Amino acid sequence: MDSLNSDNVASHTSSSNISPLDPEEFRRQGHMIIDFLADYYRDVEKYPVLSQVEPGYLQKRLPKSTPHNPEPIETILQDVQEHIVPGLTHWQSPNFFAYFPNTSSIAGFLGEMLGTGFNVVGFNWIASPAATELETIVMDWLGEMLELPKSFLFSGNGGGVLQGTTCEAVLCTIVSARDQMLSQIGKENLIKLVVYASDQTHSAIQKAAQIAGIHPMNFRAIKTSKSTSYALSPDSLRAQICEDVEAGLVPLFLCATVGTTSTAAIDPLESLCAVAKDYGMWVHVDAAYAGSACICPEFRHFIDGVEGANSFSLNAHKWFLTSLDCCCLWVKDPSALIKSLSTNPEFLRNKASDSKQVVDYKDWQITLSRRFRSLKLWFVLRSYGVANLRSFMRNHVKMANLFEGLVAMDKRFEIVVPTNFAMVCFRILPSALSETEYKNRKLDIVSEELANEANRKLLESINMSGCVFMTHAVVEGVYVIRFAVGATLVEERHVITAWKVVQDHANVILST
Amino acid sequence: MDSLNSDNVASHTSSSNISPLDPEEFRRQGHMIIDFLADYYRDVEKYPVLSQVEPGYLQKRLPKSTPHNPEPIETILQDVQEHIVPGLTHWQSPNFFAYFPNTSSIAGFLGEMLGTGFNVVGFNWIASPAATELETIVMDWLGEMLELPKSFLFSGNGGGVLQGTTCEAVLCTIVSARDQMLSQIGKENLIKLVVYASDQTHSAIQKAAQIAGIHPMNFRAIKTSKSTSYALSPDSLRAQICEDVEAGLVPLFLCATVGTTSTAAIDPLESLCAVAKDYGMWVHVDAAYAGSACICPEFRHFIDGVEGANSFSLNAHKWFLTSLDCCCLWVKDPSALIKSLSTNPEFLRNKASDSKQVVDYKDWQITLSRRFRSLKLWFVLRSYGVANLRSFMRNHVKMANLFEGLVAMDKRFEIVVPTNFAMVCFRILPSALSETEYKNRKLDIVSEELANEANRKLLESINMSGCVFMTHAVVEGVYVIRFAVGATLVEERHVITAWKVVQDHANVILST
Repeated sequence: MDSLNSDNVASHTSSSNISPLDPEEFRRQGHMIIDFLADYYRDVEKYPVLSQVEPGYLQKRLPKSTPHNPEPIETILQDVQEHIVPGLTHWQSPNFFAYFPNTSSIAGFLGEMLGTGFNVVGFNWIASPAATELETIVMDWLGEMLELPKSFLFSGNGGGVLQGTTCEAVLCTIVSARDQMLSQIGKENLIKLVVYASDQTHSAIQKAAQIAGIHPMNFRAIKTSKSTSYALSPDSLRAQICEDVEAGLVPLFLCATVGTTSTAAIDPLESLCAVAKDYGMWVHVDAAYAGSACICPEFRHFIDGVEGANSFSLNAHKWFLTSLDCCCLWVKDPSALIKSLSTNPEFLRNKASDSKQVVDYKDWQITLSRRFRSLKLWFVLRSYGVANLRSFMRNHVKMANLFEGLVAMDKRFEIVVPTNFAMVCFRILPSALSETEYKNRKLDIVSEELANEANRKLLESINMSGCVFMTHAVVEGVYVIRFAVGATLVEERHVITAWKVVQDHANVILST
Repeated sequence: MDSLNSDNVASHTSSSNISPLDPEEFRRQGHMIIDFLADYYRDVEKYPVLSQVEPGYLQKRLPKSTPHNPEPIETILQDVQEHIVPGLTHWQSPNFFAYFPNTSSIAGFLGEMLGTGFNVVGFNWIASPAATELETIVMDWLGEMLELPKSFLFSGNGGGVLQGTTCEAVLCTIVSARDQMLSQIGKENLIKLVVYASDQTHSAIQKAAQIAGIHPMNFRAIKTSKSTSYALSPDSLRAQICEDVEAGLVPLFLCATVGTTSTAAIDPLESLCAVAKDYGMWVHVDAAYAGSACICPEFRHFIDGVEGANSFSLNAHKWFLTSLDCCCLWVKDPSALIKSLSTNPEFLRNKASDSKQVVDYKDWQITLSRRFRSLKLWFVLRSYGVANLRSFMRNHVKMANLFEGLVAMDKRFEIVVPTNFAMVCFRILPSALSETEYKNRKLDIVSEELANEANRKLLESINMSGCVFMTHAVVEGVYVIRFAVGATLVEERHVITAWKVVQDHANVILST
């Protein structure tokens, strides 16, 4: 370890001369980063979308420890280009069709920069009134764009809050529901509480339940099937609840999803909420991906019935241009959150909070400290406006439909489930395999398993090419390739090329 | 609500013409924001530190809903200056001495910008290998700077992870400890688990325990006193544990703090860990504020004994220049986190993860999605280097000592607890009041309560002036003013002026 003496090397920049926030140096270096990123966006299409490095690549390229003396920004940026960029999977590439999109935009970026620059900690109102008040305002703006029931808005005695991710939002609501229920039936009954979702629901929900102390055996992933396009059936939900109630358990929480991860399936909110109501359950609607699209009147019906739910969330970082992280959560009853999540340490006491005239967002979330996330949402809303935001998403839906049409014209492929929003699920058909190597194996029937193997091989081959990146899902044992349109820079030509890439790789796989 | 037709107004920017990430427009607007922020830092000293707006101010100034059409960045930035800046409490002002610092720096800002710009979602290795690998590398770098035991580093089979805040870090460790214990004693015993801390421990710990389903009656905030400078006494801890064990409860978790929020008190790690070891408890060390200073050899001894703990965290956004949010958590046994927090949904399966050759950080935290936070830590470490980072913190400690000296020279005041790190706790002495208005009340003894009232008035008067911002704490019923030096831009002259402001306001209060 360094001895105290070794600090002498820094004596030429004596302690009083360190200026890590010198305005003119900030200006100089800040402009460099902007140019670096502008060039990155200009060139991003050229990089292999999926990083092609091997595990452990970076350790070999970086020094073993922190430098003792400062290094210039020029050197650091050069290292970013040489050593970091090759290790990125380029989520902002127009050839990125994997997972769900995680959209950047100029407005979202500027808002994030401004928030980072001000670097206020908006745990309560007084710690930066603008941070709290802007958040309440934009959450009402966005809630109105979604035609959320008034009861979810501040103007209707509900309210919205920006969290990092859906996991946090759901954890907050589960904990609130849990404590509300336990206050009626006694804390010792925690072990009896049951959380419901479908087998298509995002793993974050089960994880949130587990963190909240719900017994792992009391998480119900109710089976869905192709017959309902993988939507949760209200009848199945009711049957499961009845069984649990008979067993002496207590139904607590239902997570319904609009736009599931595997196939963008849509749970029927109205009928599910009706079932939940019969048992006094909390209903959360997770519209992480698809919620954004519901600002378009033609998609709004997918969240019909949300008025029966207790909470609703969407990830603005997914398809709403804010960049990670920005999960919008609305609740009908903020006091339920506050009862579970508030703390009132003396060091945070202040007149404004004591007056109860203000929102203290620390009591609406897990963490105390919070970033000024509302700036980026505000910038996105104002920079693009309602009309262009709708066009942005419609354009992606149109491109997904184009891709779907291309797949449908190739008889070797099938569209596995009807396309919702901008995500296409497709695969090579088992029947296409019977003409190929699989025939050589002299199998009479090409099983679904062989089709799965072929599709897995196809996806791997596509992704290894670096030309495009897609990911997969497995539904009822069927391996499907997901093609999620949504990168900010994507244009029709990328979608057309992507399909050509799929066909080229399929040709190889199906001909060998 | 807007009809579909109203979208026609945007027809001149038809769907294919929307370019929210156009590189040249990004460059133009990006440079504008950099200049805006450079000017902000240049001028920040002039603004009232504590915002002087009234609750609801912003609602009156902003439109009622999202604009239908785009607005230019120039208009938005003008609104930021006119409507947002007055509503900020300026955490980056050199006159900000409240709470704990939340430090910005050029390097931290650049790293955050680059991470936001790349906007990758590093939930697992494959989703961006560089994001994961850089994090493992810088966590080892920083761990070595702190002389953490090898067992906390990847190079010693432990490892570090970047979380948002201490609340998240502690929640992860409590959940891991909980599940480890319940796997031995049975899930039905959740209700018996007890979490220990001192009455000085941050409220985040109690909140984390509550979220994790620990029975609220089973959180022990063990009393501390001035005799130990508000450090947790190992004897008190053992006595409480014995009592709980006798009552059939199960000791689970101890949070020890190095640098408490109220007075920067330091819990004695070595002896506390020894007690915890006797009962097989998980020990977490929360060094959110003071941990950063332990990179200086002369402060390192404050975390002596950390080798007996299971986990250790500090907030690099507090005093380590990264800007919010950046909580560094190290654990000895990553598998404990992974057992509690891992999910393996099919859509995330990939060869690298299946090979177990890589770290998938989604299993080390609450959320699935995660930002590329390691860039900003890497930028800070390289841009300043070990020597300057030490100087930066030493300089603040020196300024705190200067302030302490000034207070000590004024007989009306006292230093309430010995100053640790860069935080001074002081107050007007009860004896100073006997000469003033309080005398007029014809009280023979000026009680502590009247002193509290005077100090409360003094702090309010100081903060309302806008010249400086400090906050308070109450320890054993005594109201103290906290003066935390640490803003990146602070210089000796600000500290001297701050003391002058305190004296001026005290003069008024003590003479009326």
